[in-house]
Amino acid sequence: MEFSLSKSIEILERTPDILAAMLQNISTDWTSNNEGGETWSVYDVVGHLIEGEKTDWIPRMDIVLSGKADKTFEPFDRFAQFGENKGLPLAALLEEFKKLRHQNLIYLRSKNLTESQCEQTGIHPAFGEVSLSQLLATWTVHDLNHIAQISRVMAKQYKEAVGPWMEYLRVLQS
Amino acid sequence: MEFSLSKSIEILERTPDILAAMLQNISTDWTSNNEGGETWSVYDVVGHLIEGEKTDWIPRMDIVLSGKADKTFEPFDRFAQFGENKGLPLAALLEEFKKLRHQNLIYLRSKNLTESQCEQTGIHPAFGEVSLSQLLATWTVHDLNHIAQISRVMAKQYKEAVGPWMEYLRVLQS
Repeated sequence: MEFSLSKSIEILERTPDILAAMLQNISTDWTSNNEGGETWSVYDVVGHLIEGEKTDWIPRMDIVLSGKADKTFEPFDRFAQFGENKGLPLAALLEEFKKLRHQNLIYLRSKNLTESQCEQTGIHPAFGEVSLSQLLATWTVHDLNHIAQISRVMAKQYKEAVGPWMEYLRVLQS
Repeated sequence: MEFSLSKSIEILERTPDILAAMLQNISTDWTSNNEGGETWSVYDVVGHLIEGEKTDWIPRMDIVLSGKADKTFEPFDRFAQFGENKGLPLAALLEEFKKLRHQNLIYLRSKNLTESQCEQTGIHPAFGEVSLSQLLATWTVHDLNHIAQISRVMAKQYKEAVGPWMEYLRVLQS
């Protein structure tokens, strides 16, 4: 499937409601534990999604569309959420994410991006030249990636409870 | 985390709304394609979840709790949905799943299961003796497994569109 702005927005605008349906008012046993070691809990993942709304997708789009000579993106801090969200309840993070995503989609739509604008490029700190369409497709897949991760982290809390069925449940093996 | 009936229901009762938030009225490009070969599309996965509501979880619970001498489960047909749902729109499958899950949770709650009932066992055709708590934990994780799968199948429709970012997106590599 080729990049389509409208089909990307179809996913991006759903994510706040998906996260609310999955997580709003659920027992913290499902959301505060991780997959072991330095892996992330559901709470950490939601914090990471908030950071993306603030410092990753839209700021990078603006760099691509800017007239600047140097279109190198700021590196994204994958651990910023560990400093920023200390003590906030998950419900507050879900609300914050919903608000930021809503604002970002209003801004994205206001740009009325043309196909040729979507082919404009910026410089990724690790990959070099990337196009705006690749950035927006990645924003979309990044949501789905973290919805899958949230499902997996929650599922793993029941790794022992399922007994021998573990063998049939791919989500517990990944 | 140990098995808890109430914490299992917390997940089970959310799944219809999660699927609606993810899939209701979305472009069929996201839901009708699979991961290649004999893998399942999102449409196939929702059909499979319906089959589980009809023939797997609750019928097996009833076998465990029954007074029957032979508590062997019927094998579950993982491909029944390919015969049953031909031509139905995804919206109809989502509605059907929601109705069946709602009825099944009313039935489950009506049993007022005790801890000792949750330790009663049935015979799985492949694994042998399994407990009711393992069956109910598996029902729960099975939902999360397929939510992760739906996210992954959708994400893979954009496998090329993300360009070099593929390297950072675990969901595209699994």
